[in-house]
Amino acid sequence: MADLTPTPDNQPALSRAPMDAAFLARVQEAVEAGDAAALQRMLEPLEAEEFADLLHLIPADHRDDLLELHKAQLDPDVLPLLDESVREDVVEQLDTKDLTQAIANLETDDAVELIEAMDTETQREVLSALPLEERDALRTALSYPEDSAGRLMQRELLAVPDGWSVQQCLDTIRARRELPEAFYDIFVVNQDGMALGSVPLHRLLTAPTGQAIRELMDEQSQRIPVLMPEKEVAYIFHRYGLVSAPVEDESRRLVGMITIDDVIDLIEDRATEELVHLSGVSEPDFYRDTITTARSRFTWLFVNLFTAIVTSRVISAFENTLQSIVVLAILMPIVASQGGNAGTQTLAVAVRGLALRELTWMNAWRFVAKEASVGALNGFFFAVLIGLFTGLWYGDWPLSLVIGAAMIINLVMAALAGGLIPLLLHRLKVDPAISSSALVTTVTDWCGYACFLGLATLFLLK
Amino acid sequence: MADLTPTPDNQPALSRAPMDAAFLARVQEAVEAGDAAALQRMLEPLEAEEFADLLHLIPADHRDDLLELHKAQLDPDVLPLLDESVREDVVEQLDTKDLTQAIANLETDDAVELIEAMDTETQREVLSALPLEERDALRTALSYPEDSAGRLMQRELLAVPDGWSVQQCLDTIRARRELPEAFYDIFVVNQDGMALGSVPLHRLLTAPTGQAIRELMDEQSQRIPVLMPEKEVAYIFHRYGLVSAPVEDESRRLVGMITIDDVIDLIEDRATEELVHLSGVSEPDFYRDTITTARSRFTWLFVNLFTAIVTSRVISAFENTLQSIVVLAILMPIVASQGGNAGTQTLAVAVRGLALRELTWMNAWRFVAKEASVGALNGFFFAVLIGLFTGLWYGDWPLSLVIGAAMIINLVMAALAGGLIPLLLHRLKVDPAISSSALVTTVTDWCGYACFLGLATLFLLK
Repeated sequence: MADLTPTPDNQPALSRAPMDAAFLARVQEAVEAGDAAALQRMLEPLEAEEFADLLHLIPADHRDDLLELHKAQLDPDVLPLLDESVREDVVEQLDTKDLTQAIANLETDDAVELIEAMDTETQREVLSALPLEERDALRTALSYPEDSAGRLMQRELLAVPDGWSVQQCLDTIRARRELPEAFYDIFVVNQDGMALGSVPLHRLLTAPTGQAIRELMDEQSQRIPVLMPEKEVAYIFHRYGLVSAPVEDESRRLVGMITIDDVIDLIEDRATEELVHLSGVSEPDFYRDTITTARSRFTWLFVNLFTAIVTSRVISAFENTLQSIVVLAILMPIVASQGGNAGTQTLAVAVRGLALRELTWMNAWRFVAKEASVGALNGFFFAVLIGLFTGLWYGDWPLSLVIGAAMIINLVMAALAGGLIPLLLHRLKVDPAISSSALVTTVTDWCGYACFLGLATLFLLK
Repeated sequence: MADLTPTPDNQPALSRAPMDAAFLARVQEAVEAGDAAALQRMLEPLEAEEFADLLHLIPADHRDDLLELHKAQLDPDVLPLLDESVREDVVEQLDTKDLTQAIANLETDDAVELIEAMDTETQREVLSALPLEERDALRTALSYPEDSAGRLMQRELLAVPDGWSVQQCLDTIRARRELPEAFYDIFVVNQDGMALGSVPLHRLLTAPTGQAIRELMDEQSQRIPVLMPEKEVAYIFHRYGLVSAPVEDESRRLVGMITIDDVIDLIEDRATEELVHLSGVSEPDFYRDTITTARSRFTWLFVNLFTAIVTSRVISAFENTLQSIVVLAILMPIVASQGGNAGTQTLAVAVRGLALRELTWMNAWRFVAKEASVGALNGFFFAVLIGLFTGLWYGDWPLSLVIGAAMIINLVMAALAGGLIPLLLHRLKVDPAISSSALVTTVTDWCGYACFLGLATLFLLK
């Protein structure tokens, strides 16, 4: 490795400032020496984000030792910043007392994330050690389904009655003891506690103080019920450019607030999931250990082994043909491979279109027809290219016609499979990102081998 | 197609509310009939987001006709919501007068996006029709490189001198005529106009009115210069949970503000790019026409054809072996395919790790070593599985040993290629998402065929 220092220019650097290899080495030394005082001196100046970086970067066994030495001084704000698998590991190292204190210092949404990382035993201990009110709030949050708005929201928010004036709101904000750590809108509720709308703080600051708050508010056009899936929440925030939004319970009473920072993580996660799922990884496993990673990757590879074996049965149906014309074995992977790549292209565009809701039943057929045309067009060009190559290399022009025809058929099939399979899965409420990729390449493999070897059997076998 | 209505439950629906097929059909009817009044009645109640949806959903020729009938009433806020290729198409339909008015009504960041969608001729006309001050602002913005903070920022912001009290700030905000449409922080500047830090509005609202603004501000730990690449901006916003941030010029004077809504698009875009690049699509082409799409997909398929042909040369080196043992031709795609899939798994995790800066030179070797172990572990399991299958199906146990050995070697190779290639490309400042995928599958194809056929030649050929 030539150079360990962060690159100095503006390119995304292979390093998180100000963490560098030298600093990491010094921390590891202090950990190995069990020197709590030296560790304390180095870790004290770190911001929560930097400390989180350190916990991610340091090898797992050193991390455990570091926490053992430093856990009394651990800033609870670090915990929500950790990757899920690292957080579970860190939580395991902490005592119930430390955890209870951390939970008490966090807002509901972060506290819930932390509770989720504990085993049931620890959860129970920590919950029972909390003050009654907080315990109830967390129990309620945990009663909502995973990945719902109810888990994502924080209880801390600012709501005002719809009859108030701007001045009343301003006075209340200034007088209130307990406020959310950060907020961008105040929510207007009626006498039943139902959320009517929201007023951004900048509007509150610029409106005449005598004006009725009701006149200033944006009406709640998109309601977020506690049970709404978090993906839907992310979509609404992105689409309407929201910075915070009220969450309501079954009886439409305002019960929580979701803020943009939680949603950014969701958007990041959704996009990441598409990427890793399409590539056959069930969840981001960067911080997982070897055994867990191997196990989670195994399933996908097993599915692939199965489809590859079935594909080999397609090829074996043409054993006699291959025996007579061995050059077919040399050329056949080309047709299958082009199909797989073209299918994956269409698939990626379809999966993204479905996730962003660009692809709907209103334009599904237009999309599939366009992709099929693209497939036919490129199929034609690649038929010419591979036909020329085959003809010139082997001097066998009938063979070059066969491989060209197989190429066109397979690229059209690839477009159809890449477009229709995710649409069908979406229809069946199966996440197309997880399962499409294996299906599409199976289709293009089968079709590629069967068309090429089938046409060869028909027209070339003497 | 069984059902055109949006699904009623909370699942992500294949439709953008309230747009539905019936509404779309009625709009298309009115467009075909050239009935501007009917169109006006239908489009009037739409919010900007919904109108943007409509322009995305309607077929391209109908879109042009719709704009022709409706362009006088077009809400400029629709334009920044459009996908790049649709925006270019819409801009082409509008007159210089309409465009100039739209630009005048937008904040700098949105105006710049709109200008970018025009051809140079129209750009010049529109710029010269604008008031001097706005023209200069836009010219300055356009002078920054594409995808830099300077293009992303808006000029409209709120800055106060560092000597002020909270009350002075509050009074100024209330008295100012021209304010940004939305803002979440006020920026504190010194007498040279340098940004010292920012104060979130909620803190301004809750602080004692006599307090010095300087004491309230978060100091500017992460500076954003105008030339910073937008990916870097997105990283800083995400990492530090920012909602808005000041941008400074070369002499560190405050010149603009970037807000979270722009950054969400960037995060979405980055993630999307990884997805489509890894799948061999150069840019999201959902809204592009057939010819443009086919052309943009061609390059990748061409690269793939080339590597597939080179791979076929590897196979042809073993022509004699294949001639003698035809079953090798049937089984060889299995080894190559498992390698390709395992390599893609590692690759996806590496590309994501690099993009999120989880993967750095500080843990690169640990990552590659872990992936190689995962490859060896799964290689062993799949060697047993494919060995058993081969032995039982063909009754040829030496062959099953050969395919098992090739499987182990190829899965370790796949892990090394999937881990090292993106690291190397990143080092060379090439985007690993664009180019890794072809390289990795080339390695696994070559290695898969060469190991399997090579071992077979050594040990099975009589």
